[in-house]
Amino acid sequence: MAKINENFLKLQAGYLFPEIGRRIRAFKAKNPDANVISMGIGDVTQPLAPAVIEAMKDAVEQMSRPETFKGYDDSGVGYEFLREAIIENDFNSRGVSLEKDEIFVSDGTKCDTGNIQEIFGIDNTIAVTDPVYPVYVDTNVMAGRSSGLTDEGRYEGIVYLPCTAENNFVPALPDQKVDLIYLCLPNNPTGAVATKEQLKVWVEYARSNKAIILFDAAYEAFISDASIPHSIYEIEGAKDVAIEFRSYSKTAGFTGVRCAFTVIPKQLKAYTNHGKAVEVAPIWGRRQCTKFNGVSYISQVGAAAIYSAEGKKQIKETIDIYMKNAAVIRQSLTRLGFTVYGGVNAPYIWLKTPNGMGSWDFFDLLLTKANVVGTPGAGFGLAGEGYFRLTAFAMPAQVEEAMERLAAVVQ
Amino acid sequence: MAKINENFLKLQAGYLFPEIGRRIRAFKAKNPDANVISMGIGDVTQPLAPAVIEAMKDAVEQMSRPETFKGYDDSGVGYEFLREAIIENDFNSRGVSLEKDEIFVSDGTKCDTGNIQEIFGIDNTIAVTDPVYPVYVDTNVMAGRSSGLTDEGRYEGIVYLPCTAENNFVPALPDQKVDLIYLCLPNNPTGAVATKEQLKVWVEYARSNKAIILFDAAYEAFISDASIPHSIYEIEGAKDVAIEFRSYSKTAGFTGVRCAFTVIPKQLKAYTNHGKAVEVAPIWGRRQCTKFNGVSYISQVGAAAIYSAEGKKQIKETIDIYMKNAAVIRQSLTRLGFTVYGGVNAPYIWLKTPNGMGSWDFFDLLLTKANVVGTPGAGFGLAGEGYFRLTAFAMPAQVEEAMERLAAVVQ
Repeated sequence: MAKINENFLKLQAGYLFPEIGRRIRAFKAKNPDANVISMGIGDVTQPLAPAVIEAMKDAVEQMSRPETFKGYDDSGVGYEFLREAIIENDFNSRGVSLEKDEIFVSDGTKCDTGNIQEIFGIDNTIAVTDPVYPVYVDTNVMAGRSSGLTDEGRYEGIVYLPCTAENNFVPALPDQKVDLIYLCLPNNPTGAVATKEQLKVWVEYARSNKAIILFDAAYEAFISDASIPHSIYEIEGAKDVAIEFRSYSKTAGFTGVRCAFTVIPKQLKAYTNHGKAVEVAPIWGRRQCTKFNGVSYISQVGAAAIYSAEGKKQIKETIDIYMKNAAVIRQSLTRLGFTVYGGVNAPYIWLKTPNGMGSWDFFDLLLTKANVVGTPGAGFGLAGEGYFRLTAFAMPAQVEEAMERLAAVVQ
Repeated sequence: MAKINENFLKLQAGYLFPEIGRRIRAFKAKNPDANVISMGIGDVTQPLAPAVIEAMKDAVEQMSRPETFKGYDDSGVGYEFLREAIIENDFNSRGVSLEKDEIFVSDGTKCDTGNIQEIFGIDNTIAVTDPVYPVYVDTNVMAGRSSGLTDEGRYEGIVYLPCTAENNFVPALPDQKVDLIYLCLPNNPTGAVATKEQLKVWVEYARSNKAIILFDAAYEAFISDASIPHSIYEIEGAKDVAIEFRSYSKTAGFTGVRCAFTVIPKQLKAYTNHGKAVEVAPIWGRRQCTKFNGVSYISQVGAAAIYSAEGKKQIKETIDIYMKNAAVIRQSLTRLGFTVYGGVNAPYIWLKTPNGMGSWDFFDLLLTKANVVGTPGAGFGLAGEGYFRLTAFAMPAQVEEAMERLAAVVQ
């Protein structure tokens, strides 16, 4: 008799974004003429950079001729031209040296942050921030690292590190020992960043406890403050204890193109039950070679194009558009009396709901009265209740209109 | 202390194809001028169909304008235009009805056949054929469904169903009860196919035992015999007990483009430990929504183009080139006195090594003496020892030359 993995049955109903999608569809079905502005799911709206378009057209053209046709990416972990560009531009430029076989190109950070737990033992204690990107939690529940939801609404067995206005949304060290720590900085959903000193505390913790930090840096391109690190490897000693995830989704508008990468330094070790140190990078390589067949050649060529001089300039212009949106949202909300966080080094604005309103109630209010979609903070965890996330990825004109509509509703 | 998943340490050294790659690189390093012909890893060589190229160029162009830009594939499981084309062309055309939410588009059958075991309980008994596509076995070992390799060289806890010349490479039912059965037909590596009657035996077994068949139909486009089923759903009752995997990799040369899909009928059920039936499709949907972010829009547009009248004609022409290669290989080897299987309804030719030579020895002989790369049968399992796989995917001129060189070595 084929048995289901019952861990899947422990998951709370619906992944957050499909649930939001369902509510929007239900509203639109009743209100077909409503012009709904989405500042919720975090999808981008600006087209791809011209340098990327040109490069991808050329890559498609190459696929039409036997002499230039590309089949499997033999390495399974990314073409060398892309991995070399990554090392030079994303890391060497910030004083971090890496080797090609420490870079694993993939089709998304969601996949990588979701799959990475597979290569670690089931009995590791997982720490996540609260609020948190739900993928980190749900994938560990699926794997069997929780016996289920507690009455409080958290998953048993997972250590939650509250991020609140009081700690400026940067978590304190846990009271108990943890083994795998998910940190997303700049943070989704709060827009918070960590200073070098704050990250150093975590690196030291991981080094002292032989823990591993799973560092999601998908939003590093949005950092405007020059003192904030873009990579955890800017912290001394981090290569021994941290895996870093990077994505082109928001950096270069690749949500529909699919390309990302993960960095696992060769010196990073995990341990057997007998305490023997094992290199993690080859284990991840084995996982990827066995369960994954590489990223579309066309997408990889497109990703490499963002590292050209033109490409860099063009993606910077797009990021500037989004960060101008973020500034408009921050200013409008502040003027309306909201307490607002984020939006300076991140494309996310995290706001306190008015008068302690529940965050799903605020979601429904905005959707039905202003026809504006955001993301309820409670969808990211218990500590997100009473908060709400808006993204900066809409069109500028939409952002202006959304702010006007929002003002009309809450004033 | 971060602990590694020790199941990964149980895996045999190196995934088969990287090992082959390593031997080729070592040979080329010593013999830089050798013109090595690859008939090993199964990568295609013919360029993409013109209809696919045109469609993908247009898709790239769409990504350059805000009005037509595409971000996330909201469903996470494929655009409707592609899922509709799949149902109409791949299934309705063969008398099989399916609904859109029974189709899950992905970036590869390797990913899907590798990941599918995740949604089933750890205590299911897995059955695979021997020889077998290594991904089915390795992913179950990684998940912890084996305590390790036996002295014999098989994984403990996994049920192997020998496929030999005696049973025409179609496995007999197992002696013991099994829960999840991987069947690949047309078969990789043997090139064997199953008749409707043979598949019916398996469907009946699964129905009687509440087992699930994981049916890898990645090579169905190469079937030339009109009586052979392309989909397991052509067998009555199969929708209750089978998941089917399809790929564009070989069908349309998408090894570097990345697009595939998996079919899970709504009526397919697995069971909890208490015997409660659970629908499998929503569980897979939850898995995909949580750990995967959809396939490149450009790749999906390319895949849809193969269902146009032109696209169908063009991919048929390419398949004909490969199957003509297969015929040349069969004829040449037969003339040389080899015993040869497959290559009629599949792009794989499975041959007996001469004089009982070990299959890795034959690999080294062909590589060093004929500069031709194939795949040793032993790489696919114990029952593959003494066999060798050649693929039909090289250029026709290369196939001719490879056969001449092979003749010179073995004659």
